[in-house]
Order: sequence, then C-alpha cells, then structure tokens
Amino acid sequence: MDNFFHVRTIDQVFDLIPEFPRVDTETVSIEQARDRVLATDIVATEDLPDFPRATMDGYAVRAASTFGATESNPGLMTLTGSIGMGQKPDFSIGIGEAARIATGGMLPEGADAVVMIEYTDPMDDDAIEVYKSVAPGTHVVGVGEDFSKNEILIPAGKRLRPQEIGLLAAFGFQTAPVYRKPRIGIISTGDEIVPIHELPEPGKIRDINTHTLSGLVASAGAIPVSFGLVADHFEDLQQTCVRALQEMDMVLVSGGSSVGTRDFTIQALSAIPDSHILVHGIAISPGKPTILARCGNKAFWGLPGHVVSAMVVFLKIVNPWIDHIAGMTQQVPGKWTIPAVLTRNVPSVHGRTDYIRVRLFEQDGARWAEPILGKSGLINTMVKSDGLIEIGMNTEGLNQGTVVNVELFS
Amino acid sequence: MDNFFHVRTIDQVFDLIPEFPRVDTETVSIEQARDRVLATDIVATEDLPDFPRATMDGYAVRAASTFGATESNPGLMTLTGSIGMGQKPDFSIGIGEAARIATGGMLPEGADAVVMIEYTDPMDDDAIEVYKSVAPGTHVVGVGEDFSKNEILIPAGKRLRPQEIGLLAAFGFQTAPVYRKPRIGIISTGDEIVPIHELPEPGKIRDINTHTLSGLVASAGAIPVSFGLVADHFEDLQQTCVRALQEMDMVLVSGGSSVGTRDFTIQALSAIPDSHILVHGIAISPGKPTILARCGNKAFWGLPGHVVSAMVVFLKIVNPWIDHIAGMTQQVPGKWTIPAVLTRNVPSVHGRTDYIRVRLFEQDGARWAEPILGKSGLINTMVKSDGLIEIGMNTEGLNQGTVVNVELFS
Repeated sequence: MDNFFHVRTIDQVFDLIPEFPRVDTETVSIEQARDRVLATDIVATEDLPDFPRATMDGYAVRAASTFGATESNPGLMTLTGSIGMGQKPDFSIGIGEAARIATGGMLPEGADAVVMIEYTDPMDDDAIEVYKSVAPGTHVVGVGEDFSKNEILIPAGKRLRPQEIGLLAAFGFQTAPVYRKPRIGIISTGDEIVPIHELPEPGKIRDINTHTLSGLVASAGAIPVSFGLVADHFEDLQQTCVRALQEMDMVLVSGGSSVGTRDFTIQALSAIPDSHILVHGIAISPGKPTILARCGNKAFWGLPGHVVSAMVVFLKIVNPWIDHIAGMTQQVPGKWTIPAVLTRNVPSVHGRTDYIRVRLFEQDGARWAEPILGKSGLINTMVKSDGLIEIGMNTEGLNQGTVVNVELFS
Repeated sequence: MDNFFHVRTIDQVFDLIPEFPRVDTETVSIEQARDRVLATDIVATEDLPDFPRATMDGYAVRAASTFGATESNPGLMTLTGSIGMGQKPDFSIGIGEAARIATGGMLPEGADAVVMIEYTDPMDDDAIEVYKSVAPGTHVVGVGEDFSKNEILIPAGKRLRPQEIGLLAAFGFQTAPVYRKPRIGIISTGDEIVPIHELPEPGKIRDINTHTLSGLVASAGAIPVSFGLVADHFEDLQQTCVRALQEMDMVLVSGGSSVGTRDFTIQALSAIPDSHILVHGIAISPGKPTILARCGNKAFWGLPGHVVSAMVVFLKIVNPWIDHIAGMTQQVPGKWTIPAVLTRNVPSVHGRTDYIRVRLFEQDGARWAEPILGKSGLINTMVKSDGLIEIGMNTEGLNQGTVVNVELFS
C-alpha cells in the first residue's frame, strides 16, 4: 500500500517507461504510411540516381571542352545528337562535342557537365557556340549523389513525413514496415455523468472526457476506442476494465475526482490479476491524483475527472507513453517549443511542476504568452489557449516579462 | 500572353486568393470532427454548468456561516444531509448549516461555497466543526461560469481541436457543421518517370512527386486523389486535366521542369474552356517556374518537377490556398515559427524570396538552424531537414549568427 501515499515527481514517473514493451509491427502500403512509425531501418538498394541526370535544359558536354570559353571568345562545339527524355543515349561525347539535353535527361558516356541553353548559340544543324566555361559536375546530379547504395535511408523509430514517403517511392518500395497503431481504451466514470445524447437531469452533466481524450488519442497517432460510461459501481467498473485491458494496448479511466470514485478505481485495479499500482499521485498541477498501474505489460491510467486536468495529464505524460509503445525514438517536430514573453506574473508552488495554459499573440514586434488562469473544471480555459508552459518544481512562480517556452496543442 | 513572361512576387500571388470560393459544407458526427473546419458559429444553448458544482470534496455551506472560523476558534455547524452524486438536493442550506458534498456534486439551495473536508472535523452524526472561513464561490463552479447561454462557443472557420470537440459534447451536440474536405487531384508528368511498381529502364526514374504531394495534401487536411502518370503528350495531358478538374476542387500537375513539358502544361491549360492563366513564374527559389490558372472557379497549379521545388511551392503557396478553400480563417497553431540561430552564412539573390531547408538542433543552451544546402532535385535535403526559413526579396543573404524563424514541416 506504500505507493498509495507516495507522490512521485514527473521524472520518477518517466523512469518507469522502459517497463512497457512496444506494440508489434505490420506492413502497410506507402499510401497508408504517412505519420506511421517505421519499424526497421530502410536501406538503399541502389544508388539514387543510378545514372547522371541533367538539372537544366542545355547541352551535355565534357567540361574540359568549355575551358576558356567567354562571351567575347566563344568555343565552337560539334553537335553529336539529341537525348530523348527517359532514354539512354546510344552515343558518347568526346572533346569538342555537345548533345542537346533537357532537365532530367541522362548524360551520355563521356559527358560530365551541362551548359545552360542561355549560354549557347546555334551555328547550324551541326554546331553550337558556347559562351561560358563550366566545371565538371555543373548542372548534373551524379550517380549516388542523393543516396548511395547500402546507406540507411530512414532509421527505425522515425515518424514518416511526406518526404520519407517520397524517398520510399524513389527506391520502389510499395510498402513499409511500421509499428501497429496502439489501441487505447477510454472509460469515463461518475454517477453524475450522462452520455451526450441524453438530456442531463438537474445535478448531472454530459460526458466531456470521452470526447476530449478520444481526440487527443487520435492526434497522438493512436486509435481511441470508447468503452462508454460506467457508474460509480465497483463490479461494473472492474468488469469494464478487465475487458478493455484484454482488447487494448493501454487503458485510460477518467473521472474519479471524488474520493469515492478514486477508491473504486484503485479497488478495481487491485482486483485485476497481475496488476501493480506503480504511481498514485504525481507532483504536478493540474493532475495530482493521477494513477498508473501496470496490468500484465499494459499501462492503465486513472486520470483526474476535471476536463483540464485530464487533458494536461494526457498531453504531458500519457502522450509520451503512447509514443514509446508506438515505437517512436525521435523527437516529434511538433514538440519544439515556441519562446514567448509572459504578460503577467504567474504564482506557483515549490515542490511540484505546474502547467499553465497560455494564449499566444504577436504585438509590437514581440510574441507574448498570456496565462489563461481558471479552475481545472472549466473547458473554456483550454478552448482559449494555444498551449502550455511548464513551471519547474524548484521555481516559485514566474515574473511578467520572463521568456517562457510554449508547447503548442496539436 | 502577357502573364507568360511576367514573374509575380509571392504577395501578388496571394492577392489572387479571394477569387477562389470555399468548398461547400456537410454535417459530421463529433467523433469525425477533429481537425475539420467549422462552417458556422456554434452558440451556447444553455449555461455551462447549469447548476452550481462543487470542485472539492467537503461540505456545502453558506459562506457567511464560516466567517471568523479559525483553527483555534472553530465554527460549529449543523449537518442537514448528504448530497448524492448526480442528484439534485431536496433540501436547502441556511445559516449555520452544512451538507456533505463530493467533487462534481450540485450545491443545495442556499449554499454558496464548499469547505474542504481537510478543514473540518466531525463532532457527531449531526454536527461538524469548521476551521477555516471561506468566501462565497470558494470551491464552486457557478452557473454559466464556463460558458453563458447565447455566447459564441466556437467561431466559424476554426479548426476543431480535441478541446473544441469536448466543448461540443458538453452542450450535447452530436454533430457539427463543417466544410467538406477539399479533394485535390494530383497528376505527374514526364517521359522519364515510371510508376513505382515498375523497374526503371536506364534514363528513367520512379515517380516521387505523386507520393510526396499526396502526403502533403493529406497533412493539409484535404483528400489527395492521384490521376497517375501522364507522358509528355498534349492530348493525354489535356484529357487528364479536364477529367481532374471536373471531379476535384483543385488540381496539381507536377513535372514539366523541362521547357517541352512546361509548354505542354500551358497548352493543355489554354485549351480548357473558361481557363485563365493567372501566374506563370513566381519570384521565389526554389519554385520559380510555377503556374497558376483559374479554370472555372478552381485553381490549377503547374508545380516544378524537382522534388524539393514541388514540396516548397506546395508548403509556402498551395497549402495556404487549400486552407482558404477549406474555410479556415484562423491561424493554424502549427504555423507558429521557431526562432533559431543560423550556423553559417546563407547567400541569397536580391529581388526574389528564398526558402532554405534547415535542420534544427539544440547545443550549448541555444537552438540552432543548420542550412541543408543542395540541388532542388535531391530529396535527401528534405529528409535531413526539419523546416524552412525565408529570406525576403530585399535581403541579400543572411549572416551566421542571425536569429531566423523556422517554419516546421508537419
């Protein structure tokens, strides 16, 4: 029962991540692979390009033939042919020879540069004048200049962006090995909550957390599966948790802001075979009453019932957890923070990490972060905000004018 | 034919946006509404909450009853009942009275504050001692404190994040009116290009642009539809363009880096009834040979064939165009730029806007942007980069140490 009363720091919670294995992998078409996490290193099967390509319209030449050519002293070159797009030239280029080539065309044997058409003049059908000398490699992409055979194209653990999808296409990969999207079960609890299609009686409110958490799970690249609303009833909650844990890779229970419901969640977890309560309380605000259990090798989260608290705990703790089991090893680009100047003082308590909702705006050439303060049950504070700032455990508040780092909502 | 030779600035191109109408709207379930663009203002149909709710476990009281209560001089209060979760109390609270309440519970008539359980002690079944005085409103969310009836909850044109989905749920909206996702046709051209399932003969390469552009379109929240590869053949290209324009909201043709193909695209466009070439050449690098036509009321883009050029033109010009026809009126959060220090000098040409690929990294407590230079045909430069920086038309290069604003790839 020790864990019940020992509040962990956020770093201590993250130390537990390696206890949880990654989901398994699958193969998807590259059309379906965007934003998926690559499961194995992808290696170049050939050079890219595997022939020298022109990057400008002009003439393929041996560069040495042009040395010394200027506007006042042009070089005369013999036209040996014209290179069709997508065709391998059936002739070669020697000193003093040139062949018409278009952007993307394959250089003939013997040619090592392209003179742009702007720097040439046709003399007759068989000769051109060249007004500029070019170095070897000019306006050419050489063999393997983009990627060399056997080079790692994309490392395992990377989320695939459109450019990585294009790179797979360039090498003819029609499919990619990726981690399966984690399936995340969502359970809402509370006798005061009704589904959104019901009219709440006085004293009841509609279920918000199922919908905010489903959206956050989907934004995290995982698959949300709602297990519906469960009243504050031990057996119902326990049965729903067991079913969700069987079918899902991770389970989120939200609600239980009241002591009674919290007790039910702990009881339900404790009654599940092979379950260990790892965390009961985290030194953060909002979100202190968060529960983390390991059931088998799956994470089970008890999130606070207040809508803001549940969202903040998801964004700051559960989302990185999903990234981990989803196989991600690299920084997500969207996680780069935005520096901004705080518009007012923000108090904070020593010994816990505070997350403050802020609205970003630009004014007088500067970027400002305006704290959106308010109770953690008020969803308007999240709707008005663009992201979160963090106030560390050893900091007692931040002063107006401090430059803070804003992590944007996605 | 004037437009053929008049290169536009990027600002002049954006001045054309209002000529293009928005797509029509549809109704989707809120489960499907994440990242969609709201089509009409959503207004609060009631107060949220519509009853006063406790935000802590404790006792509902009339605040005035507690005034003067301290640890050394506690106030004695009569217990009048206990409030069940999700139930409307059938009693009221007078001066000197208190009722047990849990977080989320409905305050009884007459109560205006909650005393946390930590500041009370039970005397017997009928009375408690209170050790702290509370102000009216303490630990209570008042009627309409989150949102008031008739207030605009979410304005039209806003992309719906998880918190906006939750807000719709809070008011019982099961569906939301949103703009339809624009359908964007993608055509690749070039005699040297083969589909990725074919083995390229010498001189040919696989189709990359269809795949990078499809990914970018999907990341922009629209639906990519590939119309396949078209060889450099006027009639084939023209027929495919006509079909794509009939079925799609916008069409992208990529390829045509060579003069011949460019001519085909212009010819194909000119032969389409009710088509006007608005732009032929933009003062940007990479991406200068971009074409924009209006066909009926749809935008038709001729993008450069080089993979980097096509991606940059998409990100900097086509993507905002899609946002416009998709109904978006608000800044996308992800478009906030990241300041970073340039690691080396970057040259640039006066009179055009340059976009430089950069890799972001942190070192020595600073955030750095390393330019990833390279030919615009090399996809490795996009794979190594995290985003783009812009060098304005009137700037001739940037010096090492300059703070630049990085727009991240999504």
